[in-house]
Amino acid sequence: MAWQRLIRFEDESGHERFGDPCIDHADDLHTSLQKKELLAHVYEGHGPFALSKTGEQCVVKRILRVLEPTDVPIVKCIGLNYMKHIKEAGRTPPPFPTFFIKPRTSIAGYDEQIPIPLIAQDEQCDWEGELSIVIGKTGKNIQKHEALEYVAGYVVSNDVSARKWQRDQAYAGSVPQWCFSKGFDKWAPLGPMLVSPRVVGDAGNLTLNTFVDGVLMQDSNTSDLIFGVEEIIQFISQGTTLEQGTVIMTGTPSGVAMGMSKPLWLKDKQLVKVVIEHLGSVENRISFE
Amino acid sequence: MAWQRLIRFEDESGHERFGDPCIDHADDLHTSLQKKELLAHVYEGHGPFALSKTGEQCVVKRILRVLEPTDVPIVKCIGLNYMKHIKEAGRTPPPFPTFFIKPRTSIAGYDEQIPIPLIAQDEQCDWEGELSIVIGKTGKNIQKHEALEYVAGYVVSNDVSARKWQRDQAYAGSVPQWCFSKGFDKWAPLGPMLVSPRVVGDAGNLTLNTFVDGVLMQDSNTSDLIFGVEEIIQFISQGTTLEQGTVIMTGTPSGVAMGMSKPLWLKDKQLVKVVIEHLGSVENRISFE
Repeated sequence: MAWQRLIRFEDESGHERFGDPCIDHADDLHTSLQKKELLAHVYEGHGPFALSKTGEQCVVKRILRVLEPTDVPIVKCIGLNYMKHIKEAGRTPPPFPTFFIKPRTSIAGYDEQIPIPLIAQDEQCDWEGELSIVIGKTGKNIQKHEALEYVAGYVVSNDVSARKWQRDQAYAGSVPQWCFSKGFDKWAPLGPMLVSPRVVGDAGNLTLNTFVDGVLMQDSNTSDLIFGVEEIIQFISQGTTLEQGTVIMTGTPSGVAMGMSKPLWLKDKQLVKVVIEHLGSVENRISFE
Repeated sequence: MAWQRLIRFEDESGHERFGDPCIDHADDLHTSLQKKELLAHVYEGHGPFALSKTGEQCVVKRILRVLEPTDVPIVKCIGLNYMKHIKEAGRTPPPFPTFFIKPRTSIAGYDEQIPIPLIAQDEQCDWEGELSIVIGKTGKNIQKHEALEYVAGYVVSNDVSARKWQRDQAYAGSVPQWCFSKGFDKWAPLGPMLVSPRVVGDAGNLTLNTFVDGVLMQDSNTSDLIFGVEEIIQFISQGTTLEQGTVIMTGTPSGVAMGMSKPLWLKDKQLVKVVIEHLGSVENRISFE
């Protein structure tokens, strides 16, 4: 990928385009946009993974979803990947990455509302701020030393979770149910831009913060990840094709509602914001249906 | 859908086409083909879910995969759905459908080899003959009484499973791992034809048999399903879009290797055949990589 950061945006003529925003830091994305000073190098091509630089620069009027559900074949997720979160979840560290899947219909934009269906509204709706990997080229049986060649970029994300459907015997039965409880429409919002590994550097040393209505809930660093980016890609590509566009959510650190003695479950109209160093933020309002 | 049964085939000029085979019973498909007497009403259109009848009839030279992985956005699966299988798995009946996901890369044809990666070859590879539903139109929050309107057809299938990765603490950790252990490439082979609910009638009363190298292993009937077709579609579409082309595997009855006192785990080169009344058979050779 030639770009350093990738956004999809509307230009001043109302056309949808891809571009590499002219910013030095992730935080500049929204401040420059608000000042109407955000420029981007324009990229053209067939979708976010087949783009070429045009040489043109233009003004960004509005930032759109960088990945549409049709760009993403599937969302592959790792659970139980931070030690303190494993303890707050009452689990033991897994010997290999704990793996589950969300459908691509769970993808949402960086500023979209997250609809909560009636069956998930009763004191169980929880946030999970996560570093996500976006796969840029299809591969299988990928080795650790070559794993980064398959990464188009990283993106900040939220693995929204309904804990009763996930964990309570009365709902889930004897086998914890991760796919149903986390797979509702728009329960995987992604940040506004993909950021190349060349910009991010070591993805295993990024601060991660989650705020609910401005209150800091998760305050961690990806250095606490048990299984890092290369290890995850190696593990989940064993015997299994990782398709271009696959989003891989890497797990959440401690600080979710589930871990609290009196859990602050998400309520209607609350705003959840996840911020990861170099990646910007994903900020979504909870909307009880 | 206008067709009764849908196949994709090669005609005598080597062209790939869709068609409704001129047969009275599922078993006639292969017997007529072998006699070079299989005819089909030709259908045309954009993929298996947007077809119109042409009025033309032609000879079927070779039967192809009715669904390619690109026709299927995702494979949604139900586990623990037959009482005797729940007992052989050492589980209790779930209060709601037990739900997990396979990626579309797990789709395979009715006669393709199933590759078994090295990590799944050590006395753990198991069959699961299953009735699958194929969704013909996209929907969400689908009610039971309208569920059959969303069904394009049924297909016989096999939910191949690696039991150590699914259940053993040394592999899966404390949370059973259904997505990794069942999601390898081509571990969801599908039968040669989709069969309309109009032909099948009550999908809750179909004999299901699985043979390994000709030996009968699973001998059951979909009448033992705990959650039937309408109930599954209602449950998994709550708050979640079911996309056109989605394959839903409905669970397996008893008679898998896991349930045996001395399990007959699948070995290299064995042939697994699943037969369901009205749907024909899916027959795949196991191939240790």
